[in-house]
Amino acid sequence: MYRIIKKDGLAKRGELQTVHGTVQTPLFMNVGTAAAIKGAVATTDLLKIKTQIELSNTYHLHVRPGDKLIKELGGLHKFMVWDKPILTDSGGFQVFSLAGLRKIKEEGVYFNSHVDGRKIFMGPEESMQIQSNLASTIAMAFDECPSAVADRGYVQNSVDRTFRWLGRCKDEMQRLNGLEDTINKHQMLFGINQGAIYDDIRVDHAKRISELDLDGYALGGLAVGESHEEMYHILDVTVPHLPVDKPTYLMGVGTPANILEAVDRGVDFFDCVYPSRNGRHGHVYTNYGKLNLFNQKYEKDMRPIEEGCQCPACRTYSRAYIRHLLKAKEMLGMRLCVLHNLYFYNTMMEEIREAIEQERYRTYKEEKLYRMSQGK
Amino acid sequence: MYRIIKKDGLAKRGELQTVHGTVQTPLFMNVGTAAAIKGAVATTDLLKIKTQIELSNTYHLHVRPGDKLIKELGGLHKFMVWDKPILTDSGGFQVFSLAGLRKIKEEGVYFNSHVDGRKIFMGPEESMQIQSNLASTIAMAFDECPSAVADRGYVQNSVDRTFRWLGRCKDEMQRLNGLEDTINKHQMLFGINQGAIYDDIRVDHAKRISELDLDGYALGGLAVGESHEEMYHILDVTVPHLPVDKPTYLMGVGTPANILEAVDRGVDFFDCVYPSRNGRHGHVYTNYGKLNLFNQKYEKDMRPIEEGCQCPACRTYSRAYIRHLLKAKEMLGMRLCVLHNLYFYNTMMEEIREAIEQERYRTYKEEKLYRMSQGK
Repeated sequence: MYRIIKKDGLAKRGELQTVHGTVQTPLFMNVGTAAAIKGAVATTDLLKIKTQIELSNTYHLHVRPGDKLIKELGGLHKFMVWDKPILTDSGGFQVFSLAGLRKIKEEGVYFNSHVDGRKIFMGPEESMQIQSNLASTIAMAFDECPSAVADRGYVQNSVDRTFRWLGRCKDEMQRLNGLEDTINKHQMLFGINQGAIYDDIRVDHAKRISELDLDGYALGGLAVGESHEEMYHILDVTVPHLPVDKPTYLMGVGTPANILEAVDRGVDFFDCVYPSRNGRHGHVYTNYGKLNLFNQKYEKDMRPIEEGCQCPACRTYSRAYIRHLLKAKEMLGMRLCVLHNLYFYNTMMEEIREAIEQERYRTYKEEKLYRMSQGK
Repeated sequence: MYRIIKKDGLAKRGELQTVHGTVQTPLFMNVGTAAAIKGAVATTDLLKIKTQIELSNTYHLHVRPGDKLIKELGGLHKFMVWDKPILTDSGGFQVFSLAGLRKIKEEGVYFNSHVDGRKIFMGPEESMQIQSNLASTIAMAFDECPSAVADRGYVQNSVDRTFRWLGRCKDEMQRLNGLEDTINKHQMLFGINQGAIYDDIRVDHAKRISELDLDGYALGGLAVGESHEEMYHILDVTVPHLPVDKPTYLMGVGTPANILEAVDRGVDFFDCVYPSRNGRHGHVYTNYGKLNLFNQKYEKDMRPIEEGCQCPACRTYSRAYIRHLLKAKEMLGMRLCVLHNLYFYNTMMEEIREAIEQERYRTYKEEKLYRMSQGK
């Protein structure tokens, strides 16, 4: 289902066939937490900004509107009207970052909903069941994401448990995919490598999960407080121990520079809230660095956010107009910035794919990083 | 510039030629207060929802981003990227409803900005200058809008002053349209009839302003607290004293029923924040009455807001999905509801025009009102 079309150093130019169509990697998944991309962006808009995969959050959809409701309505694709691939995370990260009082046990995690405080239990089986109800294209294994600064003993125990959970995830998905009333019987499972910033724990865990022949492998627990250099180091050390012939996904990362560096280290799947979150705050990406559209100097600037950009914002509207909208707290300002930022990321991924195909990735990366750091 | 294509009873089917294109009446102007329709709706969206005229607010644009800035950038059409007609109100209504401490004098009104509290003076000349800077297609005369429950003496004095202000508006616009650096030298001026709910003051004022040969005539100070019956009565009494061969504009009105009744009394221009404001609160219009999408009963309703509706929301999304978005406070929910509601209003105006052309307006109106009152 996954094949490498070209390699350039460690950079992979791949293709993943799914039941919801084929995607080209490296790619950036556009985050629509609660079945919508924040900033008033609809799935009909995604077709215009080169989105290949939409990513939704299991935890959020479980608490509202409920995965059983979504299953009853035909699954997430039908609910949000999107026929291309959807990846759902496992809920684990949100359980550890958003939920109230939580208790981690061998069977799973007990916690309180951040919406209404009610008690919820989620373990590997529950996460798989919820994701099966959502009927996403790719499900993520249920893991614990220990803090980057957790001590070694804690991380080792956590990773061991996450490994046991992975086996249970795999078994449960196999069972679910075989049930008559499962909406997507071809749901894929990606495992997640953990180990904080301990090289040997990361490598050992990578080797162990690689033996399970999953549909893809992710690196979790990065970009959660460690430095960029530490993150790149973990990639250098760990990625070679994950199967090259499967998608390699760096979760929750990151800046354009992070992505450019990670591709160079063999990663080809990404997701991050930066482009949408920054967009909602008027911070927009260009090939000459990030602009803060609240800045006074854009008050009379009738240029688009970036000259030549073909996104729905730049094709029509000026920096001056968008700045006014942002200052007047008009939602349209946020929408235009989010559309631009996602288009920028998705277009960068397109450039990355082309550069790898033409075996000039390193040059491309360096030029791009240089240009973005220079400003204009 | 304005001609009547057909009359059916008092209902007028007209056409207004402007420097920004020709519009068909009766029509509903879509309100974009601060140069954007609230709910993340862009001018590019307006092309898909049958908008003929966009309406922006002089007061809001004067305080932010400033009419001089907009003039410097080429005018409001260029700023918001909209090449069809724009109507700007005079600022009067906002001065009286939004601004802090205000003092009304013969020369104009002294008040404080609602944004930063700074002292502003606006009189007829200033309002015309601001609207000329914005370069809207149609400017409204600067008036005072007395409370519907103000006493007779106050209203009579106010209306007399508003009449004197109208003369000054006309003179000032003539001067401005003749200046070399005026962006829209063909800006039109609509006068505004006032008089609260005093028949004789309304009629007397209507007769006096009719003599000034303006480009159109509006009825102001209605839908501000009086009953629907009182408003219809004022229309019955006043409209016959306004020129039939000029646009007749009922400001800030209203519900679909209000519009249907007012058309029957000779009105052919409308504007109102209801469709966008209600949309942002999940209240959506259908031919079978208004729905509150927060209602539990839409939780699993996979039908569009209205079956057969061709708006950008109904063509793709379900009530269940939009309800989820609204409950999850996703901006997209508001955007979809606002697009639907404006499309509903603009489509109703299309039906109204067709019914008048076919001389079956009264039948159409009664059927429409009956159907909307029945629910489904």
